Amino acid sequence: MVNDAYSSTNNNLGNLKDLAADNPLRLSIRTAAQTVRDTTPLAQSFTNFVTINLVANAQLAAGGTAAMSFLPDDIAGGEAASGASYINVGTLLPFYKDALKQITEKFHADHHRWVLDPVAAGMGTTRTAILKSFKAAPPTIIRGNASEVIKLREMWELPLQENDNALDSIARQSSGPVGVESADDVEAAEASAKALARFIAKSDAQGQGAVAVSGETDLVTDGEHTYRLPGGSAMMTKITGAGCSLGGVTATYLAVADPLTAALAASALYNRASETGEANSHGPGSFQVAFLDGLWSTTPAQIAASPILA
Amino acid sequence: MVNDAYSSTNNNLGNLKDLAADNPLRLSIRTAAQTVRDTTPLAQSFTNFVTINLVANAQLAAGGTAAMSFLPDDIAGGEAASGASYINVGTLLPFYKDALKQITEKFHADHHRWVLDPVAAGMGTTRTAILKSFKAAPPTIIRGNASEVIKLREMWELPLQENDNALDSIARQSSGPVGVESADDVEAAEASAKALARFIAKSDAQGQGAVAVSGETDLVTDGEHTYRLPGGSAMMTKITGAGCSLGGVTATYLAVADPLTAALAASALYNRASETGEANSHGPGSFQVAFLDGLWSTTPAQIAASPILA
Amino acid sequence: MVNDAYSSTNNNLGNLKDLAADNPLRLSIRTAAQTVRDTTPLAQSFTNFVTINLVANAQLAAGGTAAMSFLPDDIAGGEAASGASYINVGTLLPFYKDALKQITEKFHADHHRWVLDPVAAGMGTTRTAILKSFKAAPPTIIRGNASEVIKLREMWELPLQENDNALDSIARQSSGPVGVESADDVEAAEASAKALARFIAKSDAQGQGAVAVSGETDLVTDGEHTYRLPGGSAMMTKITGAGCSLGGVTATYLAVADPLTAALAASALYNRASETGEANSHGPGSFQVAFLDGLWSTTPAQIAASPILA
Repeated sequence: MVNDAYSSTNNNLGNLKDLAADNPLRLSIRTAAQTVRDTTPLAQSFTNFVTINLVANAQLAAGGTAAMSFLPDDIAGGEAASGASYINVGTLLPFYKDALKQITEKFHADHHRWVLDPVAAGMGTTRTAILKSFKAAPPTIIRGNASEVIKLREMWELPLQENDNALDSIARQSSGPVGVESADDVEAAEASAKALARFIAKSDAQGQGAVAVSGETDLVTDGEHTYRLPGGSAMMTKITGAGCSLGGVTATYLAVADPLTAALAASALYNRASETGEANSHGPGSFQVAFLDGLWSTTPAQIAASPILA
Repeated sequence: MVNDAYSSTNNNLGNLKDLAADNPLRLSIRTAAQTVRDTTPLAQSFTNFVTINLVANAQLAAGGTAAMSFLPDDIAGGEAASGASYINVGTLLPFYKDALKQITEKFHADHHRWVLDPVAAGMGTTRTAILKSFKAAPPTIIRGNASEVIKLREMWELPLQENDNALDSIARQSSGPVGVESADDVEAAEASAKALARFIAKSDAQGQGAVAVSGETDLVTDGEHTYRLPGGSAMMTKITGAGCSLGGVTATYLAVADPLTAALAASALYNRASETGEANSHGPGSFQVAFLDGLWSTTPAQIAASPILA
Repeated sequence: MVNDAYSSTNNNLGNLKDLAADNPLRLSIRTAAQTVRDTTPLAQSFTNFVTINLVANAQLAAGGTAAMSFLPDDIAGGEAASGASYINVGTLLPFYKDALKQITEKFHADHHRWVLDPVAAGMGTTRTAILKSFKAAPPTIIRGNASEVIKLREMWELPLQENDNALDSIARQSSGPVGVESADDVEAAEASAKALARFIAKSDAQGQGAVAVSGETDLVTDGEHTYRLPGGSAMMTKITGAGCSLGGVTATYLAVADPLTAALAASALYNRASETGEANSHGPGSFQVAFLDGLWSTTPAQIAASPILA
C-alpha cells in the first residue's frame, strides 16, 4: 500500500484502467459507506488478542458498532443483531477448534454472512486443522495477505483455472507466511484468490463471494472480475493490526452490502485513511492515531472516488 | 454523555437542582480523588480482552495502579494489596464460570469490595449463568448501561418499589442490549438501578452499595438517593471501552472511598475528561489520546465541582 | 527512569564512570540496532493480554517484526523463523502450565534463545509453579523489575556470592511485588540479578546470559560485569506495558546480538525514546504515542551513545 509502488513494481498491470466515475461499482461503494454511517450496523467478531482493540475501534471509526466474543452461545445470541460476522484466527486457544466448527456450521445453516482472516495460514497444526474445517462451511469474504491466500487455496485443494496457469506456477512456490508477514507479492496470489472466490460464491445462497489480498497494491476479486486498488501507506506495515482491522471493517460493510462491494469499499477506505494518517504523523504511534481519525473523516464520496483498476 | 443532551431530551428532570458547592458529597468526592492521587491505590481486575489495556491505562491516568488476572489463585493472592477489585464479563472463556464463582465467593466471605460491569447482560447462556451466580455474592457497585442494568435486575428477580411503578413498565419493555450497546435510555433504568442498589447494600457488611447507569446523562443511586450527572462527550460512544474503563476507575476510587462517592467521582471525572478529549481531537483516534490526558490532568477540585443534579 | 533520579537517589553509584565512546560494547550496541533496522528480524511472543498490542507495536517501531501465540504447536512452527522468542507471564490461563513447560523444553533442546519477563513473580500458586519450572529450561535473558528479579532468584534457590552479601541482606527483606509494581529499588536486586545471570549463562550453549532490572536507573548484568543506565522518564510508570514491551524489544535485539548487548541496547533505546516521549506529550495518552514515535526515530548512533555506567 505504498503510494508510488504501483507504477514502479507492477509494470505488468500497466494496461489496466481506473474505473469511470459513473461505473455502477462506485455507486454501490458510496451507498455502502453512506449506509454504514447512517445505520451504524453491528458486525460481531471472534478475533485475536493482539489487535482486538484496534478491530473494534476501526469498526466504530468507520461508522459501525462492534461486539467481540469467543463462545458459541454468545455468537449465536448475537447473530440476529449482526448484519455480518468476522472470524480472525490470529491467536488460538485450545478450545477454539470445537468452538469455531460449531460457530461456522451455524453461520452456514443460517446463511449468515461472514468474513475470514486466515492469519498465518500454514503455521501450526491447530491453525491448519481449523482453517481446513472452514471448507465445509465457508466464509462470504476472505481477506488476507498473499501468502495466506495462497496457503488457504492449497489447504482447501481447490483447482486453478487453465488461464491461471502462469500464476499457478508462482503460487506453488510459496512456502507460506513468515510469522504473520507475507512472503509473497500480491500478484502471486491472483490465481489462488480467484479459485477461493469461485468456491465460496458457489456455497453462498445468493452465489456471491469475494477475496481481498492486501499488499502494496490490493487485489479484490469475486472470481469473475478482478480489481487492483493502488495507494495507501507503507506505515500500515509498521503498526500491528492493519490487516486484522481491515477484515473487521470489511465485515461492517458486508452487513449492508454485497461481498464484492464490501471488500472494495473497505480496501478503498483503508488506502485513503492510511494516506491521511501518514501525512499527519511522525512515526507509528502518531500514525495509528491519525489513521483512526482518517477512518472517521473519510467521506463516502472520497471512498467511492478511490482508484480502482480493472 | 452529550453536552446538550440533558436539556433537550430529559425534560422530566427539569426540576432537579445542582448540588450546592458546600454539599458534603462534593467534599467526599474531592477527598477521594485527592487520596487516589496521593496513595496510588491498587484495584485488580478480571476484565475483557477488548479493552483490558484501556482499563489499566485509565486507572493509571486517574492516579491508581492496575493488575489484571483470570486465575482464582492470582486474584486471591492480590486481594490483600487491592483496596477494591473489578470484574467485567465482556469476553468470556469456558473456564470463567467456575473461576468467577470461586472468586466472588471469596470476595464475599472476606468482605472485599468490588465493582461489576455486567457487559451485554442477557446475551448468551454462559453469560447469563455467570451473572445470575453473582446474586449470591454480590458486588459493591454495579456500573453498566441502561439495558444491562435492567436485564440484571430482571435476572436477579428483585422487586421494584411501589413508587417505581411508572418506570417499572418501561423497564419491562426492554429486550436487553443490542450487542454491547444499550437499547434503552438511562431514565428507563432508574427503578432497576434503585432495586439493585438496595439489594447490594443489604448484602454489604457496612450496608452500602451503589449503581451507576452510563448514558447521555449518567444516573448514580445508592437505592435511597439518586443523582444525575450531565455533560461528557458523544465521542465516548465512538471508542471501545469507555464504559469498561469507567468501571475500572470506579474500582480505583472504591479502593479509597464509600461506594456512592466512588461511583459519583468516577462518573464526574469521565464527564470532564471526555469534554477535554473532545475539545482536543479531530476523530476517535486523537480523542482517546486526549481523553487519557484529560483523566491525568483533571484536578480533584474540578471533579468535585462537576454538575451533580438531585 | 527519571532524568534526575540517578544523582539524587543513588549516591552509592557515584564512583561509576560512563563508558568511553570507543568502548567495544558501544559498537556492539550500534551494530545490533542497525542490524535490526536492516533485517527486520522476527521475535515471536507468548505474552500477556493487557499489553500484547504494545509489545507488538514496540517491536515494529524498533525495527523488528512480531508474531504472538499461545499454542506449543504454533510456537514450535515459528521457532525457525524467529531469531529469538519472548515469554511474559503477566496474565495466565489454566492451560499455560503445560503449554509453557512444553515450549521452554523445546527451546532448551533446540538451543533457541529467549527472553523471560517474570511479571508479578511471587503472586499466585500457578505463576509460582510456572516460574519454578523454567529453572530446568532457562531463558537467555531475564528482564524484570527489582522485586521480580529478587523473587525469581529465591524461587530458583540460587546461591549469592560472598561479595554480594551486603546486598543479599537487602534482597532477603523483599516481600515480592505489590501487584505488578516493584516494592524494591533496583540496587537491592543487584546480587539476585548477578546470581540469575551466572546461572542462565551456565545453561546456555555459548555460556552467555544477561539480566536486566528496570527502574529509575536500569541495571544490566551478565553475571561478571554490571552496568547502570540512567535516564528515561517517570511517565513510563504511568502507562501499562512499559516493562512488558521492553522485554519484547529485548527479544528483537537478541535475534541479532549476544544477550548482554541485546539487554543494554533495548534499555538504552527505551531511555532515549521515553525522554523524547515526555518532551512531546501532555499526559499518559500522548506520552505513549510520542514514546512509540521515539522508538521509531531514535537512531542506532543515539542508542549507542546513551549513558552506560560501569
